[in-house]
Amino acid sequence: MVRIGKLVVIGVGLIGGSFALAMKRSGGAESVVGVGRGRSNIEAAHRLGIVDRGFVLDDAWTAELGDADLVFLAPPVGQMPSLLAAIAPHLGLQTLITDAGSTKQDVVAAARTLLGSALPRFVPGHPIAGTEHSGATAAFDALFRDKQVVLTPLLETDATALTRVAECWTRCGATVRRLDPARHDAILSAVSHLPHTLAFALIADLAARADANDCFDLAGTGLRDFTRLASSHPGMWRDICLANRDALRRDLASYRDRLQRIDALLDARDGEALLALFTRAHSARDAWVERQSGGDEV
Amino acid sequence: MVRIGKLVVIGVGLIGGSFALAMKRSGGAESVVGVGRGRSNIEAAHRLGIVDRGFVLDDAWTAELGDADLVFLAPPVGQMPSLLAAIAPHLGLQTLITDAGSTKQDVVAAARTLLGSALPRFVPGHPIAGTEHSGATAAFDALFRDKQVVLTPLLETDATALTRVAECWTRCGATVRRLDPARHDAILSAVSHLPHTLAFALIADLAARADANDCFDLAGTGLRDFTRLASSHPGMWRDICLANRDALRRDLASYRDRLQRIDALLDARDGEALLALFTRAHSARDAWVERQSGGDEV
Repeated sequence: MVRIGKLVVIGVGLIGGSFALAMKRSGGAESVVGVGRGRSNIEAAHRLGIVDRGFVLDDAWTAELGDADLVFLAPPVGQMPSLLAAIAPHLGLQTLITDAGSTKQDVVAAARTLLGSALPRFVPGHPIAGTEHSGATAAFDALFRDKQVVLTPLLETDATALTRVAECWTRCGATVRRLDPARHDAILSAVSHLPHTLAFALIADLAARADANDCFDLAGTGLRDFTRLASSHPGMWRDICLANRDALRRDLASYRDRLQRIDALLDARDGEALLALFTRAHSARDAWVERQSGGDEV
Repeated sequence: MVRIGKLVVIGVGLIGGSFALAMKRSGGAESVVGVGRGRSNIEAAHRLGIVDRGFVLDDAWTAELGDADLVFLAPPVGQMPSLLAAIAPHLGLQTLITDAGSTKQDVVAAARTLLGSALPRFVPGHPIAGTEHSGATAAFDALFRDKQVVLTPLLETDATALTRVAECWTRCGATVRRLDPARHDAILSAVSHLPHTLAFALIADLAARADANDCFDLAGTGLRDFTRLASSHPGMWRDICLANRDALRRDLASYRDRLQRIDALLDARDGEALLALFTRAHSARDAWVERQSGGDEV
């Protein structure tokens, strides 16, 4: 199994912090250097044993890159280009680079432009894991256990680099899957970016009502679950929605059409067609839950 | 505290069964008679100790109504009119009637037409509680503990009847709130009927994709929570959506407008406005969760 001597994590939040913890506690990384925007977050990461040394972006941290074995990029995706540009001139000749961005076509495009000769050592990735919490204090070493990680290597990607990054994720307890970046973005738009957008939209609609207080007072656990995604980090999700806007706009259009058809069924009091739709959805979801976990809600 | 001698529960599913259990175990009801559509469900309810005697609709069950102290109606709302018509001629002169329908204007209208002289003893109600499971086997006595129950009495409703039904709910551990039926339906459309519809719609959209299998394979816990409502009983939800279609169509229209505005922001790459929207939603949800439970996700 792969062992990383020096791991540099850029963006020590839920994902970056959890990766650092999982790698350290599994013996996969000897030392971790953390780099982030906020001083208090990096200090928390140090206090919690997530990083051995911490820097904010204004510090002289790029000197840490020359002898780094792996650089793990986990900032909000909107900051990926400037960070790729910042690290490129300072990477060692053996340094591997990977990322945890929720969108992949934009990261791949930025890496192609900015990473230069380090491009073959860059392995784009996306762990399908998370909670609605953010920051180093939300990190925990089991976040990726039994979760999936998608790697979207380029034609130029070095086979050894790919294997080593995949092994890091295996160390964290995840299973690794390869996908084309465009396919990744299309699928994640449907199963993650669209649902997040819908949850934000519903809460925004509720909060804008004249009877908003009564609505929230009477809402039950159903609305809680339905809108948990709306407690996700707003800035991170703005970045993701913009980065994957083409796929997201296609899915939004299809979803709005679906709502329009449901409205037409309500207008026509077509109970039979409504029942058929609800039954189809019910069966599809139950089959999925059954497949993923033997039927237990998790 | 109120004590019910003989309780007749019509529709012994999650709600009716849980009410029967909570009333029996708290000493609030001496005996429970159950009436339902499916023989196997009623047999399960009897086996589980939810009802002392069980009938299906084809049996001669109306003779049980004359000396009943309380009739609790908890069928899918679409069956409410025919059941009100069926019980009306057989109710005792002291028998109280209440229901657990998720919509109230339609139930109130049906009761006005069908209950005749028993109308003042009818207390329309709606417990804001549930799981995505259904049937007698899903019932449990703690379902209503720390939950809210909305009662929507009419001008004609007898004050003693209202008090006694409210006390039954207090026995079940719920807090009781009064609302006008139209206000109830408007609020519940926003916080329950719309989210259910949106969850069914999203799963239907996903299942209709050419890459549906890949989508479900890569979906994480976020989609699980977001779509849990789509595992609700399809027939029950068809009834609810049709019963409350005016409010639901208004909310659907408002929501589709919201999605259209979000699409326009994506089209314009207006990150600032997107961030403002997501931040507003994030804050509203967190404030709500904080208010309801001191910030713990439940």
